[in-house]
Amino acid sequence: MNGQPPERVTPVILSGGAGTRLWPLSRLGRPKPLVRLTAPESMLQLTALRTADPATFAAPIVVTNADDADAVAGQLEDIGVTPASLIVEPVARGTAAAIALAALEAGDEVLLLVMPSDHEIADPDAFRAVVDKARIAARQDWLVTFGVTPHRPETGYGYIKRGEALRAGVFRAAHFAEKPPLELAIAYLAEGSYAWNAGIFLFRAGAYLDALDAHAPDILRAARAATDGRTRDGIRVMPDSDAFARAPNESIDRAVMEKADRVAVAPADMGWSDIGSWEALHAIGDKDADGNVVSGDVVTPGSSGCLVRTDGPVVAALGVTDLVIVATERAVLVMPRAESQRVKEAIEALHARNRGETQ
Amino acid sequence: MNGQPPERVTPVILSGGAGTRLWPLSRLGRPKPLVRLTAPESMLQLTALRTADPATFAAPIVVTNADDADAVAGQLEDIGVTPASLIVEPVARGTAAAIALAALEAGDEVLLLVMPSDHEIADPDAFRAVVDKARIAARQDWLVTFGVTPHRPETGYGYIKRGEALRAGVFRAAHFAEKPPLELAIAYLAEGSYAWNAGIFLFRAGAYLDALDAHAPDILRAARAATDGRTRDGIRVMPDSDAFARAPNESIDRAVMEKADRVAVAPADMGWSDIGSWEALHAIGDKDADGNVVSGDVVTPGSSGCLVRTDGPVVAALGVTDLVIVATERAVLVMPRAESQRVKEAIEALHARNRGETQ
Repeated sequence: MNGQPPERVTPVILSGGAGTRLWPLSRLGRPKPLVRLTAPESMLQLTALRTADPATFAAPIVVTNADDADAVAGQLEDIGVTPASLIVEPVARGTAAAIALAALEAGDEVLLLVMPSDHEIADPDAFRAVVDKARIAARQDWLVTFGVTPHRPETGYGYIKRGEALRAGVFRAAHFAEKPPLELAIAYLAEGSYAWNAGIFLFRAGAYLDALDAHAPDILRAARAATDGRTRDGIRVMPDSDAFARAPNESIDRAVMEKADRVAVAPADMGWSDIGSWEALHAIGDKDADGNVVSGDVVTPGSSGCLVRTDGPVVAALGVTDLVIVATERAVLVMPRAESQRVKEAIEALHARNRGETQ
Repeated sequence: MNGQPPERVTPVILSGGAGTRLWPLSRLGRPKPLVRLTAPESMLQLTALRTADPATFAAPIVVTNADDADAVAGQLEDIGVTPASLIVEPVARGTAAAIALAALEAGDEVLLLVMPSDHEIADPDAFRAVVDKARIAARQDWLVTFGVTPHRPETGYGYIKRGEALRAGVFRAAHFAEKPPLELAIAYLAEGSYAWNAGIFLFRAGAYLDALDAHAPDILRAARAATDGRTRDGIRVMPDSDAFARAPNESIDRAVMEKADRVAVAPADMGWSDIGSWEALHAIGDKDADGNVVSGDVVTPGSSGCLVRTDGPVVAALGVTDLVIVATERAVLVMPRAESQRVKEAIEALHARNRGETQ
């Protein structure tokens, strides 16, 4: 090897929140990161394993909430990953504050790779290649966002327009755009310089904290006070609850990325999906000859184009087309696959009946 | 009251067999008669309650099998019905032999009303009126079959053509016809003198045994030997197993009704259904404003024309049309309502996967 090995990066894995879009598989008490969606491993485990190579990555800092902390710790232990810290948020205050806790825990000079814990990345080599490019820019105090190459005019994501090239594979971020209407999304896709904002970031901890100080000082102040007042139990870090509760609830995008100067985007064509719907899970899943994606004790005679999953009762889908059928021991969902963004209507209807089995 | 009260009739309730057509609600270990399909009571309970009026009916003789005997006894006890006898068939040998056991148990002079235990009769007054007409003919040693007035060209039932009128509401049976192809079923319906053979009979026990002696003597011989060798435990009657096993396995229709001379048909327009499919259960069920028939913890936002049932997990059917969705703790079935006769394909597919949860 010539010279210094490249600097290691500390993964920051955000595993909070529940998400209703994959109900009934995900629900209160079993949030999406902890569910096995695409593999025998949960999304959290896949995220941790994706950044487990010790040549590139240090032990991760994991940020979660009190409800999920035991399950998160247990799932990581099951795959042999020991976090450097497991930060237990006393209350959810958005990603800007959560990442501030991780940055303060890590120390200013550490490079942080911030990742949601419930995304699919089908091409880990492409992901690693982007990490390699981004960490050099991050060392130069760029706040680097991963910009996922769009393959469709998606209206459910924010977009980042890239500006001038900073170095190979890293560009100045010219503009952060909100979730666009369809016509604008089509224009972004055609224009070619827009990427999806996937919520994956690489930066020096101190550079992030400096930007927070400049653009959202209340968040930094609350996170710092919460960190000063933290208690520890092994790897678990419990920030001070009262102090942290004073942090404004904001996303990193809104608090920092849309405002800071040295923001870069690293285009990433890495088979990314946020698996934000059953339709999305069908799209990325292995299909049988009839276009069904099945998981668990399932039979599908005469059915086609369906997503059929169970981790509870055996499911027989007979002669049906383009449905989502998901069963657990507690709940069953049946709906047209193309309308899977409507799953909240099912949850609302159940709420109206006062069921406790949802969130 | 003038003169003698009419002679009482002894119900013979046949509660054997499993039936796969309402899987997964019915299955091995939970046959259709024991399931609550149309009411808080099971089909067996509804059948017993339909013939519980002591002014007209004596205590029933119930014929079941060893697997179901305890459940049958328990369900009858729950509604306050004490059978005269609970005959536990050592092995299934068809309805001709089962009814022979009941006839031998009852004694020659008793009038028997033989009924399957899993049929719906929506108009109990009409049913009672047919019983009243049929029992007079039965006392004159006619073997009376209940002929259900057809309302559609059903190809799944046998038909009985009526001949000359014997008395008010009772006709000589001119012809028993097998399940017809559709064109023939349409012709039967148009012709007007054909009725569905619902498997409900009223006759004197001795008249049935005489007809059996004439047309299926092997069945009578085996049933008689099994009865001679029976053991008793309270109301339970256990016929001799080896003797009964020698009975040919035949239906009462084939063994007796299609051959005997004094066979009559009593037309019955009584809201009858054998609930032979999920489609049939949807047809007779109470529909909401969207044409859904639901039962259990179910929500159906945006869905129409569906049958949705659960006695296990909560079910959300969202934006789907004309489906059958049935859930238990062990299995979930989803299929188009109009194809519900195909449920066996689901069971076969599960068998092919070696699931034990079916029959």
